[in-house]
Amino acid sequence: MRVAIALFEGFTVLDAVGPYQVFSGVPGVEVVLVGERVGPVLDHVGSARMVTEAAFAEVERAEVVVVPGGPGQVHHMDGGPVQEWVRAVDATSTWTASVCTGSLILAAAGLLRGRAATSHWLAVDQLGAWGASASPERVVFDGKYVSAAGVSAGIDMALELTARVWGPMVAQTVQLAIEYDPRPPFGAGSPTGAPAEVVELLRGHADAVLRGR
Amino acid sequence: MRVAIALFEGFTVLDAVGPYQVFSGVPGVEVVLVGERVGPVLDHVGSARMVTEAAFAEVERAEVVVVPGGPGQVHHMDGGPVQEWVRAVDATSTWTASVCTGSLILAAAGLLRGRAATSHWLAVDQLGAWGASASPERVVFDGKYVSAAGVSAGIDMALELTARVWGPMVAQTVQLAIEYDPRPPFGAGSPTGAPAEVVELLRGHADAVLRGR
Repeated sequence: MRVAIALFEGFTVLDAVGPYQVFSGVPGVEVVLVGERVGPVLDHVGSARMVTEAAFAEVERAEVVVVPGGPGQVHHMDGGPVQEWVRAVDATSTWTASVCTGSLILAAAGLLRGRAATSHWLAVDQLGAWGASASPERVVFDGKYVSAAGVSAGIDMALELTARVWGPMVAQTVQLAIEYDPRPPFGAGSPTGAPAEVVELLRGHADAVLRGR
Repeated sequence: MRVAIALFEGFTVLDAVGPYQVFSGVPGVEVVLVGERVGPVLDHVGSARMVTEAAFAEVERAEVVVVPGGPGQVHHMDGGPVQEWVRAVDATSTWTASVCTGSLILAAAGLLRGRAATSHWLAVDQLGAWGASASPERVVFDGKYVSAAGVSAGIDMALELTARVWGPMVAQTVQLAIEYDPRPPFGAGSPTGAPAEVVELLRGHADAVLRGR
């Protein structure tokens, strides 16, 4: 079974790597990193590059499609190769998933009309512009579409999806293999749990957070 | 301030990317991915490559050093360039950190003698062979040495270290930016929380899990 994860310049590395590490631990799954062309793709920080191993044209089918987010997402809202590939491969997929602002790309491609979805907490309200129903949940399933909230939520999403596709025992085996027993030192991972001044600081810099620095 | 993260063939991507995503979100921090040579480095799954942006010889100093783990770690236990670089740059660092079996490399380099440290739950008992004291904790601080348990624990470690170095407000801001409000669908992330048959399955395949497939 093939899982295809799309990369584009300005993506957020952890958005892609969370699901990558989960799905690549499932026996029999082949994960392919795919992009407009084969080669290194720079992340939104500008300090890391991951390599796409296949071009969009080479990956016409995938059982599971994952679209990460990141500030670079803004360059894929008005058509273009990422949207075109996502729309085409979605026609073959059993599951189409997003992490963070990747859901905005799915929405702009017309795939989330009338569906519930989530995104990074600073971006989730934008989903309505494409007819999707914005949810504050961390992981949202609606039909074959699965969306995760910001960045790190892709790990939870991938484990939930693994449980649905390959069963709870496989999901738990992967979870133990990556020792995912999270112990964040603070409860600041959501806008309701973080100190008000931290929430305000990020809201004030939402453009910088979502669109790069 | 510079954070240097070492990559080597057979590393586990999330080991490196968890800390990368945290530290690269701290204002004023430059994160450099470093390896024996500049270029793509294949992960232990064999499906992803990250690019080192600098060679070991180019990075003689770093305030924070991070050594990830992964099955490829076994090739760096008897000297060689990774150990040599780690030992040299450790002499300049304020903090030297590891994720997963990266602590075994630090230990083999002689840096953890008489110190408490942790590692992937399937590997933590190996630390004693190099005079380190194996801890079952998820994140262990001992002097300037910080170790994280398996794979995903690098996120928790990096947030704790960020709080110590740059303060709790900065750590919480990064945590909210990456929306790290984990909701694992199962409690299977540790050997005490996972079903016994999942623990036994992985113990039976420990070589495969730790040494690649």
